[in-house]
Amino acid sequence: MNHVPVAIIGAGPAGLTLSHLLHQHGVESIVFESRTRQQVEETVRAGILEQGTLNLMRDTGVGERMEREADIDEGIDISINGQPTRIPLTELTGHHVAIWPQHEYLKDFIAKRLEDGGTILFSTTVAEVDGHLGEKPTLTYTTEGGVPETISTDYVIAADGSSSPYRKIITEGTGIRARHEYPYAWFGILVEAPKTQKELIYATHPEGFALISTRSETIQRYYLQCDPDDTVDMWSDERIWEQLHLRADSDEIKVTEGRIFDKAVLRFRSAVTEPMQQGRLFLAGDAAHTVPPTGAKGLNLAVADVSVLAPGLVRALKRKDTGLLDAYSSLAVPRIWKAQHFSYWMSSMLHAVPGEDHFATQRRFAELRSVLESEAGQRYLAEQYVGKDLPKFEV
Amino acid sequence: MNHVPVAIIGAGPAGLTLSHLLHQHGVESIVFESRTRQQVEETVRAGILEQGTLNLMRDTGVGERMEREADIDEGIDISINGQPTRIPLTELTGHHVAIWPQHEYLKDFIAKRLEDGGTILFSTTVAEVDGHLGEKPTLTYTTEGGVPETISTDYVIAADGSSSPYRKIITEGTGIRARHEYPYAWFGILVEAPKTQKELIYATHPEGFALISTRSETIQRYYLQCDPDDTVDMWSDERIWEQLHLRADSDEIKVTEGRIFDKAVLRFRSAVTEPMQQGRLFLAGDAAHTVPPTGAKGLNLAVADVSVLAPGLVRALKRKDTGLLDAYSSLAVPRIWKAQHFSYWMSSMLHAVPGEDHFATQRRFAELRSVLESEAGQRYLAEQYVGKDLPKFEV
Repeated sequence: MNHVPVAIIGAGPAGLTLSHLLHQHGVESIVFESRTRQQVEETVRAGILEQGTLNLMRDTGVGERMEREADIDEGIDISINGQPTRIPLTELTGHHVAIWPQHEYLKDFIAKRLEDGGTILFSTTVAEVDGHLGEKPTLTYTTEGGVPETISTDYVIAADGSSSPYRKIITEGTGIRARHEYPYAWFGILVEAPKTQKELIYATHPEGFALISTRSETIQRYYLQCDPDDTVDMWSDERIWEQLHLRADSDEIKVTEGRIFDKAVLRFRSAVTEPMQQGRLFLAGDAAHTVPPTGAKGLNLAVADVSVLAPGLVRALKRKDTGLLDAYSSLAVPRIWKAQHFSYWMSSMLHAVPGEDHFATQRRFAELRSVLESEAGQRYLAEQYVGKDLPKFEV
Repeated sequence: MNHVPVAIIGAGPAGLTLSHLLHQHGVESIVFESRTRQQVEETVRAGILEQGTLNLMRDTGVGERMEREADIDEGIDISINGQPTRIPLTELTGHHVAIWPQHEYLKDFIAKRLEDGGTILFSTTVAEVDGHLGEKPTLTYTTEGGVPETISTDYVIAADGSSSPYRKIITEGTGIRARHEYPYAWFGILVEAPKTQKELIYATHPEGFALISTRSETIQRYYLQCDPDDTVDMWSDERIWEQLHLRADSDEIKVTEGRIFDKAVLRFRSAVTEPMQQGRLFLAGDAAHTVPPTGAKGLNLAVADVSVLAPGLVRALKRKDTGLLDAYSSLAVPRIWKAQHFSYWMSSMLHAVPGEDHFATQRRFAELRSVLESEAGQRYLAEQYVGKDLPKFEV
């Protein structure tokens, strides 16, 4: 039977970043991914990189294309009923963010892993993880050609996203899965149009939230708060433009229009799994936790997870010191809850809950104004938006 | 028929402060109060004066006793599961607060009004307000001796607290009364004991909230979160001390014990009336809005209301300029909503909602930690705690 020190299930941000970081410290891994490389690279996803994530890309040699092509944003607008206030992120925190869609992030890491001789098995489905409570877990998987194979490993990392079947192994035991459902969703469109403006606009209005973001000079990504049960056919182009203008236009800025070539409803969910480890099985990224998109924390949290997990695995494998690895959950979870809080807070402040009463609406607007009218309030928000430095551990 | 320029119903913080401020600008008023002077002065109420309220007392000659006797606090503790963090209010904002119970505040203003020759009619019930939509409203009232009297006035101010019957005149018309009920209340005790510590402790714990505050060197005021339907007999002394220690003790500080001589349940409510004016009838203080006690904003909001209303009335009466008076609601209401938000936020962050799930508890603690671990977060909270300067208008 073949052996690999670390078996990683899932070629998403958590899995690929982990594989890359392990390689940097001379630890080998294999990444198992059920989709094709093309599917992984072409599934368009949003992405805002915190300063820490951005630094990690730069410092470990994966940042070249991002540095060349990504928009670096030093502020965001929060607009209340057409009155925008700019939050100068960089002025307030010394940090900035990069608009770099998740699939572009994945392209960078896939290219780098392959260039470094790493193994990513695309179109390969893991059928079973066995023996993770013992010393030598095994992984059974089906190759692209349909051949079943088994490999032994020291550690299994489930980084296979929010539907991960491996999470159940933990939550069916002593683990906890905390969840929260939100009474709204986002209707997202991709549109052929010039940018409305370079920096993102988070707009709130009695009719609901809108987010004006960008993909490139010619492709823009706009979102409208909608009902979680809405379907794509309920949103005609006419209704979309009417609502985008109503919610996000201001005296200075009108939302740019163009051909809409993609429509989708994004559900809002929060979930946290604790602990994130059982024996030699570890959860990372969305397999462990889900955040609503408002805070743009999903990718960054995955990177934060593996910033603990990678040095933990290196120490365990190279120095037989499992201290950091055993502390993985307790080190990763506080950051996850803070990101949940931030995402929940931004969501609650900016979205109109269907049927909310006058008190709820007015209190929400008063909270937004309290934040925006105070330098401290703006900085408290900005700090959470740009994110804290990633955890750093010597290996 | 006798005439008075301003008729004020209610000798609470709003009514007495207004009467005092009007006098300072040479405008006469009469304050009508259904209770006796002793009842007004001896109904023990909490009170934390914002810097603005404190300044108003000093600047208008009512602050002498407060300056001599009140505790000036430059910080508060927020304790999570027995781990306190001090928020240095003064260091963060340049402002401090004074612990000055509301009934002491009222004593100061009653004494000053009488010293200045002002009229406060105690034990006098206003039966009817008439003609407030016209030029010369009248007030019918019953004197202490049971004699019915009628007086004409230019303006009627209903400052008669949260049960004001005059609010209905506005809300039954085009006005709005926005409300919010909270799923918890406070169980308050007065106790003969030395101070636990000089500065207040806001303590949160999975069993609920506790507040350690002081009245004097020998009398302390402690609160425990309880169910809104709890009655005094459900809280034995033993249970009270057990819960106070459990929720508020830390390694350094133990809650001091002594003879409990008062027990009461305080309901939590938020309410805002908009507008606060109809014709020549104006609402001020609790007659217009109620805040839960967590933010200690009730008295301060009443003072903020009359800081707009007093110069508005002076301009109207002395210069026939009703511009400021007509703008009263629109000038006062944004501050009220911000105070509602702050009170709601502090309450929500510190109280365990009965039956709340793991997500809600963990998110709440993550929010508290996000605030406490950030200088900006602490300052954002501190700014709201010490309050903004009072509105200032030339007369």
